[in-house]
Amino acid sequence: MINPIDQNKLKKLAQVAVQVGLGLEKGQDLIMTAPLEAAPLVRLITREAYRAGAGLVTTLYSDAEATLARYRYGHDLSFDRSTGWLFEGIGQAFDNNAARLAISAENPMLLANEDPDKVGRANKAMSAASAPMRKRIVEFSINWNIVSYPSADWAKQVFPNDNEDVAVGKLADAIFAASRVDLDDPVAAWGEHNKVLAAKSKWLNEHNFAALHFSGPGTDLTIGLADNHEWMGGAAPAKNGIICNPNIPTEEVFTTPHATKVEGYVCSSKPLSYHGTLIDNIKARFEGGRIVEATASVGQEVLTKMLDTDEGARSLGEVALVPYSSPISQSGTLFYNTMFDENAACHIAQGQCYSKCFKDSESISEEQVKANGGNSSQIHVDWMIGSAETNIDGIKQNGDLVPVFRKGEWA
Amino acid sequence: MINPIDQNKLKKLAQVAVQVGLGLEKGQDLIMTAPLEAAPLVRLITREAYRAGAGLVTTLYSDAEATLARYRYGHDLSFDRSTGWLFEGIGQAFDNNAARLAISAENPMLLANEDPDKVGRANKAMSAASAPMRKRIVEFSINWNIVSYPSADWAKQVFPNDNEDVAVGKLADAIFAASRVDLDDPVAAWGEHNKVLAAKSKWLNEHNFAALHFSGPGTDLTIGLADNHEWMGGAAPAKNGIICNPNIPTEEVFTTPHATKVEGYVCSSKPLSYHGTLIDNIKARFEGGRIVEATASVGQEVLTKMLDTDEGARSLGEVALVPYSSPISQSGTLFYNTMFDENAACHIAQGQCYSKCFKDSESISEEQVKANGGNSSQIHVDWMIGSAETNIDGIKQNGDLVPVFRKGEWA
Repeated sequence: MINPIDQNKLKKLAQVAVQVGLGLEKGQDLIMTAPLEAAPLVRLITREAYRAGAGLVTTLYSDAEATLARYRYGHDLSFDRSTGWLFEGIGQAFDNNAARLAISAENPMLLANEDPDKVGRANKAMSAASAPMRKRIVEFSINWNIVSYPSADWAKQVFPNDNEDVAVGKLADAIFAASRVDLDDPVAAWGEHNKVLAAKSKWLNEHNFAALHFSGPGTDLTIGLADNHEWMGGAAPAKNGIICNPNIPTEEVFTTPHATKVEGYVCSSKPLSYHGTLIDNIKARFEGGRIVEATASVGQEVLTKMLDTDEGARSLGEVALVPYSSPISQSGTLFYNTMFDENAACHIAQGQCYSKCFKDSESISEEQVKANGGNSSQIHVDWMIGSAETNIDGIKQNGDLVPVFRKGEWA
Repeated sequence: MINPIDQNKLKKLAQVAVQVGLGLEKGQDLIMTAPLEAAPLVRLITREAYRAGAGLVTTLYSDAEATLARYRYGHDLSFDRSTGWLFEGIGQAFDNNAARLAISAENPMLLANEDPDKVGRANKAMSAASAPMRKRIVEFSINWNIVSYPSADWAKQVFPNDNEDVAVGKLADAIFAASRVDLDDPVAAWGEHNKVLAAKSKWLNEHNFAALHFSGPGTDLTIGLADNHEWMGGAAPAKNGIICNPNIPTEEVFTTPHATKVEGYVCSSKPLSYHGTLIDNIKARFEGGRIVEATASVGQEVLTKMLDTDEGARSLGEVALVPYSSPISQSGTLFYNTMFDENAACHIAQGQCYSKCFKDSESISEEQVKANGGNSSQIHVDWMIGSAETNIDGIKQNGDLVPVFRKGEWA
C-alpha cells in the first residue's frame, strides 16, 4: 500500500510549524497536543523542534476511542469532570516560557450521535478547567501555533464519496496547499503572505472605525468595535517577544468587537464543527451586544448550551475579515474544521476576546480590556458569516461610511 | 495477518488491572501512562474503568521515537530538563484521589547506544522532577497498579530468534500466564494468590527479624531490617482506604531494610534493565548500609551515575523474597523488565523505601520513617540477587538463626 500522504510535504509542514508557526527559540520547551492518528506529524515536529534547539518536547495525545468510551460506558457523574490538574500544569509551563503547538485532526462528527446534554456538560467542564491554559493563550503570553493533519476519520467527512486512501490524499493536499507547503520555499512564501496581511491590518487601523456594518442575504448586522481596538493578521509578537503565526493556515485580519455594541441579525454561511458535533444554519439576533435569539437547523441543543456556558458566551470576542477569493474559499471544500473554514469566510466569535487585539497590548490589564469593551468568557467559538454576497462598510468615528468589502471582496 | 495477541486474554488483563490491580472505586478519576504501542490495552482499560464508574480517564502517552529524537537531534541543554509541571499536576490529581495505572511495554534496549552521560543526566532530571508524583506512590496515598503489554520492540529483545509476530505472541502468552489471565476466573485466582502472599508476610512479621543473612555464590550479605518494619505482599490498602495490587504480576513479599545496617558483598543474578539501558553482572560491596564499591560487566557508567543520583541512592529501600520455583522464574524467560524479572528472584532495591512497609503506616511521618532507618532517595531501582543457590537465614532480635530460604526455596 502506498501512503496517500506526501511525506516530503509533511516534513515541510513540520518545518513551517516550528519555524513560521512557533518561531521556536533555542532553549524553549514545547508542549504539543495531538490526536493519536497524528503521531507521524508529531514525530516530524519533535525532530524539527529539537533541531531548532528545543529544551524538552512533550506531547499530550488524545484518543477518539477513549472519548467515545466515556459516552458509551461512563457513569453520569463523569460528564462534569475535567483535567484541571493538567491545565494548571500547562499554565505553569507557559509561565516558564514553554511554547504551545496543537495539531488539529479531529473527526468533526465524533460526538454527533451522543447525548447533547452530556456533550454540553463535558464541554462546559472542559472550558472551566482549561482556564489557566486559555488565559495565557488569549493574553498571548507565549508563542503558539495550530497546524492540521489529515486523519482518516476527518478525511472521510470532507470527501465522503471517495475511498479512505483517496480521501486522505485529497485532504492532505488541501492542507498542504492552504499551509503553503506545496511551494518551493514555504518559509519565504509565509514571509510574503504575512506582509499582505500586515498591510490590510494597517489600513484598517488607520481608519480606526467605530463599527462595521455587515449586509447580505439574511444579514444586517452592526458590530461596534472595542475602544482602542487593534487589527491584527498573520505574524505577531507574543508577550515573550517571540514572533509567531498562531494559525497555519491563516487568511484573516481580525480585531475585538465591543461586548455591548452589536445590533441586528446575522446568519451563518457555513456549518460549524463544534467539539465533535455539527451546528448548521445558525440565525442569530443581537441586542445590546448579546445574542437574544438563536436558532439552528442542525445542533440547536448544543448551540443553546454553548451560548449558555456563561455570562459572556452570547457576546462577541472577535470579528475577522476574509475575502471570498481566499485560496481556501476558492478550493470550494468544506472542511468541517474551523481552522480552515474560518479562513474561507468572514467570521465572528462568541466569547472571549484576545487582549492582543488592543493598542499597547503588551501592558494592558484585564480591567482595561473590560473598560474598552472587550468581552470575557470561558469559550471562544468562531462561526462563519461571510459569502460572495457580503458587503461591509466601515463606520468612522464621525459617522462617515467607508466601503470595506463589496460582494465578498476587499473594496 | 492474524493478530498474535489473544484479544480475549487482553480483555481479561484489562479487567484484572481495573478490578484487582486498582480496585477502582466509583467516581475515582484515573491517570494512565503508556507507550503509544500499548494503545489497544489502554482502550480496553479505559472501557473497563468507565464500566467500573470512573470519573474521568486520562492517558499520558510516551513515544520511543520522540525519546530517540531528543538524543539524535537535541541540544545539550535538553538533557537537564524534565516536565516538573506535569508531575506537579499529577501530584495534585492524586491529592484529589485519582488512581494511577502504568502500562509497562518499553524496549529495554532503547537507549543502549546513546551517550551514557546524557542518559544519566536525563534520568537524574526526571527523578528530581517526578518527586511530587513519586512521593504519593511511595507513601501509598492512592491505589495504583502496573501491568504490561507485549510491544514488538520488547518482544524482539526477549525472543531474539523468532520473527516479530511469533515473538509478540510468545511475550503476550508469558504476560498473560504471569498475570493469571489465562485462567478461567482470573479475579478469583488473584484472591487465592493474595492469601498465600499474606500468609508468608504474616510468618515473617511474627518472627520480627532484626536482619536477614543472604548467602550463595558471590554473595555474603547481611541486611539489617528497619525498626518497626512490616512485611507486605500482594493486595494491600492504600491510605485512601482502597485495597489494590500495585504490581500485576507479583510473587514477592517485601519490607524495608535499615539504611545504615547492611554489610557484605552481593552479586546480581539477572541483568537489570534501567531506563532503556542494560546493567549486567553487578558486584557490590556494602559498608554501614551503603554501597562503597560496585562494578558491572555491562553498563558500568550508567550504574555509577545511578548510584551517584543523590545521598540515598547507595543505600537500600527494599528487600524482597521470591522463591526460585515462582512461575515466572520457572518459565526460564529473561524479560529484561523489572516487573517480571524481580518476580523471578529475591531482590533488593537501591534508594527510596516504601513508608507502607512499617507498622502503623497509615499515620507514619517522614521523620519517623527516617528514625526507624528507612532510606530516602529520588530513585527506587530493584535488582535481582536470588538464584537456585540462595540461602537466607533470619536473625532474630536475640541473635537466634531461623532458616528462611534453602536452595532458593522457602525453608
